[in-house]
Amino acid sequence: MDENIYALTDTLDKDLLEDNLTENEKQSLAIQIQKYIPKDAIALAQINPTSGDVKSNAIKAFKWIKWAQRLNLDAVVFPEMYLIGYPIGDFIDRFPIIVEENIEWLKALAAKTTGKTKVIMGFAEFNKTKGGKKYFNSIAVLSEGKIERIIRKTLLPNYAEFNDYRHFEPAPVNSEQRITTIGQNKAGIIVCEDGWNDFDFFDKNLYGVDPVETVIKEQHPDYIVNCSSSITRAKKEQLKHNMLAFAAKKHATPIIYVNQVGSNEGLSFEGASRVYDQNGRLCAMAKSYQEQFFIVSPSEGGKIYPLPDGLEKTLNSQKAFTLDHEPDLERTYLTIVQTIRDYFKKTGFKRAVLGLSGGLDSTVSAVLLADAIGAENVFGISMPSKITSAESKSDARELAQNLGINFAEVSIKDMYDSTRAKFDETFSAVESKWNCRYSECFTNDNIQARSRALILWGIANEFQSCLPIATSDKSELYMGYATINGDMSGGFAPLADVSKTKLFALAKWLNKNREQKNAIPETIIAKRPGAELAINPKTGKPLLAEEALMPYEFLDEVIWRVENLQQTITDMMRAEFLYEKHLKEHGEELSIDKKLEWLNKFFRRMSTALYKWFIMPPSPIVDARSINKTEYRHPIIASRINYNKTTYEEKLKELR
Amino acid sequence: MDENIYALTDTLDKDLLEDNLTENEKQSLAIQIQKYIPKDAIALAQINPTSGDVKSNAIKAFKWIKWAQRLNLDAVVFPEMYLIGYPIGDFIDRFPIIVEENIEWLKALAAKTTGKTKVIMGFAEFNKTKGGKKYFNSIAVLSEGKIERIIRKTLLPNYAEFNDYRHFEPAPVNSEQRITTIGQNKAGIIVCEDGWNDFDFFDKNLYGVDPVETVIKEQHPDYIVNCSSSITRAKKEQLKHNMLAFAAKKHATPIIYVNQVGSNEGLSFEGASRVYDQNGRLCAMAKSYQEQFFIVSPSEGGKIYPLPDGLEKTLNSQKAFTLDHEPDLERTYLTIVQTIRDYFKKTGFKRAVLGLSGGLDSTVSAVLLADAIGAENVFGISMPSKITSAESKSDARELAQNLGINFAEVSIKDMYDSTRAKFDETFSAVESKWNCRYSECFTNDNIQARSRALILWGIANEFQSCLPIATSDKSELYMGYATINGDMSGGFAPLADVSKTKLFALAKWLNKNREQKNAIPETIIAKRPGAELAINPKTGKPLLAEEALMPYEFLDEVIWRVENLQQTITDMMRAEFLYEKHLKEHGEELSIDKKLEWLNKFFRRMSTALYKWFIMPPSPIVDARSINKTEYRHPIIASRINYNKTTYEEKLKELR
Repeated sequence: MDENIYALTDTLDKDLLEDNLTENEKQSLAIQIQKYIPKDAIALAQINPTSGDVKSNAIKAFKWIKWAQRLNLDAVVFPEMYLIGYPIGDFIDRFPIIVEENIEWLKALAAKTTGKTKVIMGFAEFNKTKGGKKYFNSIAVLSEGKIERIIRKTLLPNYAEFNDYRHFEPAPVNSEQRITTIGQNKAGIIVCEDGWNDFDFFDKNLYGVDPVETVIKEQHPDYIVNCSSSITRAKKEQLKHNMLAFAAKKHATPIIYVNQVGSNEGLSFEGASRVYDQNGRLCAMAKSYQEQFFIVSPSEGGKIYPLPDGLEKTLNSQKAFTLDHEPDLERTYLTIVQTIRDYFKKTGFKRAVLGLSGGLDSTVSAVLLADAIGAENVFGISMPSKITSAESKSDARELAQNLGINFAEVSIKDMYDSTRAKFDETFSAVESKWNCRYSECFTNDNIQARSRALILWGIANEFQSCLPIATSDKSELYMGYATINGDMSGGFAPLADVSKTKLFALAKWLNKNREQKNAIPETIIAKRPGAELAINPKTGKPLLAEEALMPYEFLDEVIWRVENLQQTITDMMRAEFLYEKHLKEHGEELSIDKKLEWLNKFFRRMSTALYKWFIMPPSPIVDARSINKTEYRHPIIASRINYNKTTYEEKLKELR
Repeated sequence: MDENIYALTDTLDKDLLEDNLTENEKQSLAIQIQKYIPKDAIALAQINPTSGDVKSNAIKAFKWIKWAQRLNLDAVVFPEMYLIGYPIGDFIDRFPIIVEENIEWLKALAAKTTGKTKVIMGFAEFNKTKGGKKYFNSIAVLSEGKIERIIRKTLLPNYAEFNDYRHFEPAPVNSEQRITTIGQNKAGIIVCEDGWNDFDFFDKNLYGVDPVETVIKEQHPDYIVNCSSSITRAKKEQLKHNMLAFAAKKHATPIIYVNQVGSNEGLSFEGASRVYDQNGRLCAMAKSYQEQFFIVSPSEGGKIYPLPDGLEKTLNSQKAFTLDHEPDLERTYLTIVQTIRDYFKKTGFKRAVLGLSGGLDSTVSAVLLADAIGAENVFGISMPSKITSAESKSDARELAQNLGINFAEVSIKDMYDSTRAKFDETFSAVESKWNCRYSECFTNDNIQARSRALILWGIANEFQSCLPIATSDKSELYMGYATINGDMSGGFAPLADVSKTKLFALAKWLNKNREQKNAIPETIIAKRPGAELAINPKTGKPLLAEEALMPYEFLDEVIWRVENLQQTITDMMRAEFLYEKHLKEHGEELSIDKKLEWLNKFFRRMSTALYKWFIMPPSPIVDARSINKTEYRHPIIASRINYNKTTYEEKLKELR
């Protein structure tokens, strides 16, 4: 395909975003583009809907449809569930009006289709058959003023972040119904998960039928169109690529894959819509993390935009833990920035306020926020207590200056003192009745963290459209090393799925790869993490996190093994950790006792952290697996479980 | 059946709870009971497991099994998923070790079966067939030292609080496999939802097969055994009763229904296990909200213990909203008390601390806590600010004295003043950069609510096993009338599914029905609710909640219509509310404008409350529908949706 078309459609993409061309300019641009449109051309609408906001989604789609009509394309294809938004959560169950509205908007859009340009669009359909769930997850083909046909999704994912089967009825494959004519071709339409069940590709299949195979064998379409809403996760892209390439080649049939872009709540879609030819060769791929009106041809392909790093890992690398986070940092950065940006935009917030401690978590959060919503909309507040070092204060200030975000320093000393005085009075009263006071506890640490959150939420009360930010990272959330109503409190938690070792790598990557180099002071990256809430009596210095927990390198590998390999303590005692390898390289060794102590500590602390997971603010999903509430729910009452294994004989002995 | 057996088994129930009999006493009790054991007797193990705590569940079950063996019963039947606990959430996905352990414990229990006494028990089974979900939701029949057979659940609910289909594979009915011999009889075993799909009873069925009908038609069992874990909800009992009675009569086959008791996280199971004879007549029913070793006979029935009020409403009453909460108050009380008690017990907490404002929410919370965990384990703190009235303070003190809970009064004035001073300093700094300060906002109200939460969490930090309580009620949560990190913050929220009008009724009911009469001062029930956080400039008195929101009678009906009828603003404008009827009875009228204003306000406020629902602490499910996180997830980003309807013509006009 001619490269010129992509230079021209950049202007079109901008128009769709900003609506800045006059009708005449649009017509003239359309004439220029038309010169380069190949045979069988269709547009892939790589577009960003808002869940539930049917009206806005419909009006937005119509702009895209009009462009397809101006260019006289054979079709414009939208992602799965585009009109109502994906994911949609439970509220279509309680507010069926949203579904009624999406049906009527679909009809209104159908009324506007003209000429040869078909519109293929995902929506939610009422299930009017007897029995089953309330809705179907469907694709409509709109043509010549009417709804030509409706295709219903067969395979409904219901694991991790997916809940399709909760509200949607699985439909039989019905291959005949899935075929529509697009220009000179016969296209077979499938919906997202329908394309993820090839019996030759996967060792274990979740479903008994492969709709792609059924449609191709029974109907012999010229190509397959897959309308998807598939989120980005670490190391998922290569699986997707291998699978789509495999299926296209196996069936000798091109596959056109359209994916949503943008974020809805914590789920982030990367776009990267694409075409595979009948040899399984990738012959077109859209930009990632951007809306794009992507013109392709199943016979002539299209342009291949490069993927961000981390969107092209091999499948094998999924099986090993590595501290080389480098290959996934660009994707991580883009995913979090997109998720923050869309969360603010879609909820109507404009500004963010966060505490700047001079530590790594708040530092990286500030950078990501500045890039997502603009430095002028971010306010960093340094809130020192008597434990805060002079270096932390100056690091925070320097970071704010470098980033160009707003900055203020306010001491929490007076708030701390008046709270502490009131606590003394209260605790005496309680102690007179309850003889169970701890000799050591986190009360003073927490007063500091909570006073800071009080200030941040106060600013959110007092200034318009302003959201406080929770800065807790994934490693610390697993350990419950975060204060309720303190640093884990906020309207959004950007780092909740980023482990500490990855955060260090990300900080370095940001210094190197952002337009503005070295915004993060080197001292922040160099220092060992600590909350600066308490003094370590052994050292006389602020307690370091690794002293309270365990080495981050070890901790992060435990998290990775639990999330990705479902390992027990027994399994992990048998495995050699990277941390152990690295010690050996220095002639040292991790004792079995110490390793077991850390593993037991991990599960004990994780069990007491479950409540904190339950009340965590919304956050992005980044890793292959996460503790994001959208994906994973661990009952709090299951907090005293033994995650180790006992033998059958030990069990028999207990039954007396 | 002879009544004597039930007097005797009361001692046995106590022994199972407290393990207080010697082996000799057990033998002698067994001999006494045996005299009265009828033909075909089996025990229904109405028992309380802890999700995930497989070892404790197994050891507990074994005590019950030994009693069944001592009594030489034909069988002892446990609820669905008993061994691993129900609900189990997502953690069996990440920690398959819990499932491995439950299999091994099952084998160990099987090894202990002897003589004629079979054990029928729910557990989680690995799916070793090719494809499908990881597990089956199964029932094992244990007999003569072995696992005799395994029955797999066919119908897997996946709505509201149910997520079975997320981790379990539906199994074919396989009627032959479901038959086991119990004593002289052939029993057909089904699992909970398997019994909820009668095609003649329901207008609309969720599934295409009725396992009860299949098993009876193909195998002609003498009776059906349904192993269940079915939670209590308002007005669910009558549906269940009608359905089970209908099915028993239709098939002329007795149905024995065993239900879990106790609470796991927010879900509460009421027990009330039972037997219907072949004429559909209820002929035995266990106690509600108590563990019971319930001996029944399919031929001779058993004892019928009465249900608490609210467990026997007619189906018709489900279709009308009424402010007569009276019939559901006993069930509501028992459900919340059981949920609090089990949450504390299963997480290992012993004590609760809450703010006592002298208002209705904190008052009813204190009563329920005292009844759930013991008055001596509850600490009520009155934390007046300058707005708090003398009456509120004395009401709080009087309540605490009446209940016998611990009490202290600490002023938050100093904390408020130092926070306010720090806010002034901070806000000037912010205002110098951001020109978006509100002229009116809730900053001062929230300082008060958050200072109080700071004190409660401080106590939880300082004293062992102590949980702060969030007192927000359902009406206020819908309106977002609760402070983040303030009154909505806590380790548990007992009232989150109780509307304000019901709370008033509950307060009166508690005064009348608790052993200790009139513990709640009349002045608390008589006063109109208000948070006492701000002064109403119009009246010069503390702002009342109904002035800030709308009349509670109206608000609670809107909530009911949204939850139970899925109504839109348009639907509700057409309906006559009770509030309107009551006004008319007094010669007044609610104007259309005012009604529309309130409805718009409801949806506007609800949309901004979604974030607060997301971070709410665990709470009981009480009503027929709720906003409990276990049941309902509404995307926060869908906060700016129009819940009204527009016409097709209006839509066409928007597409230009």
